[in-house]
Amino acid sequence: MQLLEERIRKDGIVKEGNVLKVDNFLNHQMDIKLFEEMAKEWKRLFAGCGVNKIFTIEASGIGIACIVAQEFGCPAVFAKKTKTKNIASDVYKTKVESFTHGTVYDVIVSKEYLLPSDRVLIIDDFLANGAALLGLIDLVNAAGATLVGAGIAIEKAFQPGGDLIRSKGVHLESLARVKSMTVEGGVEFCR
Amino acid sequence: MQLLEERIRKDGIVKEGNVLKVDNFLNHQMDIKLFEEMAKEWKRLFAGCGVNKIFTIEASGIGIACIVAQEFGCPAVFAKKTKTKNIASDVYKTKVESFTHGTVYDVIVSKEYLLPSDRVLIIDDFLANGAALLGLIDLVNAAGATLVGAGIAIEKAFQPGGDLIRSKGVHLESLARVKSMTVEGGVEFCR
Repeated sequence: MQLLEERIRKDGIVKEGNVLKVDNFLNHQMDIKLFEEMAKEWKRLFAGCGVNKIFTIEASGIGIACIVAQEFGCPAVFAKKTKTKNIASDVYKTKVESFTHGTVYDVIVSKEYLLPSDRVLIIDDFLANGAALLGLIDLVNAAGATLVGAGIAIEKAFQPGGDLIRSKGVHLESLARVKSMTVEGGVEFCR
Repeated sequence: MQLLEERIRKDGIVKEGNVLKVDNFLNHQMDIKLFEEMAKEWKRLFAGCGVNKIFTIEASGIGIACIVAQEFGCPAVFAKKTKTKNIASDVYKTKVESFTHGTVYDVIVSKEYLLPSDRVLIIDDFLANGAALLGLIDLVNAAGATLVGAGIAIEKAFQPGGDLIRSKGVHLESLARVKSMTVEGGVEFCR
């Protein structure tokens, strides 16, 4: 998606350790007008798929997921990273290893909000090693819901997550696919 | 706000320990159409205040904040609860005690995204003891930004946060103010 690629070129900052900092517009400060355009693009890419639920993981996926849910006219649900006392015991649970933080954490979703009748589109800001996305897919499968696909804002295509997810037959649509990036040279996208 | 109060009566569940579970529509599954109506109400309540930034805290405030930012035509920024390596060292930081989790955590926001020229509306899902809101106000003040006010979805008016924040002269608009609640009797709202 050209608009997103242009924004990454303009405002994204490549840092040591394969970090692409896009917190100017994506995951700290959030440009809602950009989110709206991204949502329209996913609506086009998943047209006719009968999506009735958007599913994401806290925290940085939530804002994008809400604007996508608005575009699809359905609710959004976010998986939570720890078990709080406000969550019923009746949850689906999986484990996710965080690339960013170097930790493993539990991810849960209430059984009430992922149903066998649901046709789920997963939305997230980043795809790198695929750990978070695999966790969300686990939860969708545990619920017996239908996974329509996954919409990712930025895929680091030089890391294995995208190929891994596609090899499982998941309809994956990444709006910007980073082929390579360096601190000096910036970002190059897949063509 | 009648629509929100009705929804709390219909789908909210009162649990032991002063817990009001509204994760059916507010902070786990998210009803975006409801968020749109809430956003319109805050737009009315803060009309002419020159709001140019919506500020919230992860995770459950993010979805509401994005829809509010859309209504105001401005970006949303969320404060983060831990320091990740993706965040520059150039942050404002404060401490918040969590009522839900019984812990104290650091809350940060990048100095780039709260500016002295900003006119900030804080948005959050709950106000109880006011700890999170006081933390967000600290960050706005640290940035030298102007605090226009705070919009809260559900205020537990029987807890001290609301009075405390109002006593500081903050323009606080809670869309539903819970006067009392019991497991047996449900929720009673302030009139």
